[in-house]
Amino acid sequence: MSKKTVISMAVIRRLPKYYRYLGELLRNDIERISSKELSERIGFTASQIRQDLNNFGDFGQQGYGYNVRALRDEIGKILGLNKEYKTVIVGAGNIGQAVANYTNFEKLGFHLIGIFDRNPKLIGMGIRDIEVQDVDNLESFLKNNPADIGIICVPKEQAQRIADAFVKSGIKGIWNFAPTDIAVPEDVIVENVHLSESLLTLSYRLNESELFKEKIGR
Amino acid sequence: MSKKTVISMAVIRRLPKYYRYLGELLRNDIERISSKELSERIGFTASQIRQDLNNFGDFGQQGYGYNVRALRDEIGKILGLNKEYKTVIVGAGNIGQAVANYTNFEKLGFHLIGIFDRNPKLIGMGIRDIEVQDVDNLESFLKNNPADIGIICVPKEQAQRIADAFVKSGIKGIWNFAPTDIAVPEDVIVENVHLSESLLTLSYRLNESELFKEKIGR
Repeated sequence: MSKKTVISMAVIRRLPKYYRYLGELLRNDIERISSKELSERIGFTASQIRQDLNNFGDFGQQGYGYNVRALRDEIGKILGLNKEYKTVIVGAGNIGQAVANYTNFEKLGFHLIGIFDRNPKLIGMGIRDIEVQDVDNLESFLKNNPADIGIICVPKEQAQRIADAFVKSGIKGIWNFAPTDIAVPEDVIVENVHLSESLLTLSYRLNESELFKEKIGR
Repeated sequence: MSKKTVISMAVIRRLPKYYRYLGELLRNDIERISSKELSERIGFTASQIRQDLNNFGDFGQQGYGYNVRALRDEIGKILGLNKEYKTVIVGAGNIGQAVANYTNFEKLGFHLIGIFDRNPKLIGMGIRDIEVQDVDNLESFLKNNPADIGIICVPKEQAQRIADAFVKSGIKGIWNFAPTDIAVPEDVIVENVHLSESLLTLSYRLNESELFKEKIGR
């Protein structure tokens, strides 16, 4: 939280969406696009798009638009997709299995090297080519097989303990699916997926018009 | 996208976090808290907290702080948690099962009334008390059992078709886990959970310092 970021989180969170849309354009053999057309597809304004991309350099040419492939490759590099990452998942329940089975992550360069759980019914089970190991082996496994990203898919009560084990092993990136916030040193990055918060945002928005009708009617 | 919201999305997305923290305080028998203490726990500044909450009315008293229970109840109402919602899930794979098994949603008032899939191996399987039905039954089911929220957990190629069926049935809130954007009428609200975008945000942040070192070094 206190770490200064050079680019605002709002811009950063839009980059993966650009990356996804540009990939779809390429799959449809569209090699060139104006910021106006891109804007119509992606739903951000053309000036927003120009501003966002200007943060990272000088893409696009006046009167030509963007070269889709070059822009996608460049955004890929910005997103760190020119590298490979080793990942481990702790928690082989539904969420852990969903993440493990999401083959698109492999294509993006995120390679799963280990899955751990404490449930004897899950230990030994194969998910893709990987056998679920006892979570008691986590620390020794990470000592011998350093990972870049640790993925937490355990209940909230166990999340901090797993995060501590990740940090101890030198992992600098944690993807946290447990419905709680975890404490880590300043140089470790945590990205949360809090499903309840997403659902409550939806229920807020479903009730918003009504809510303000009441307030105004007071 | 074009729908005007009265409160900024940034504020709205913080509300569920307030709700969760205030719930944790209550479970620890803390009934009263200053905005400063709340700030230290939740990681937003005290002035941010006061600003956020002022959007919805006059909480907290000078010199007393916030009444935790009253504030939590009020935020719960703002989030629409004083109501009950009927939900259906389409896609009974890992993500669909994870959402179905997340019992906390029931406690918050979101009641799952149906799960659908097209895979014969999954149809007939029981998840909690609910039997997975053939997705071909979706429209007739929704006609007889109106739902408030439709949850999309199918591959991206099928997402729009399911969204269309939801809209046709009168559903006004869609929670979309498919890695694609779906098109809906203006009065339908879509909340996306795009896991790839979250993972790419993490890889960006892991590389950020390096990225800007390079740019500056040019």
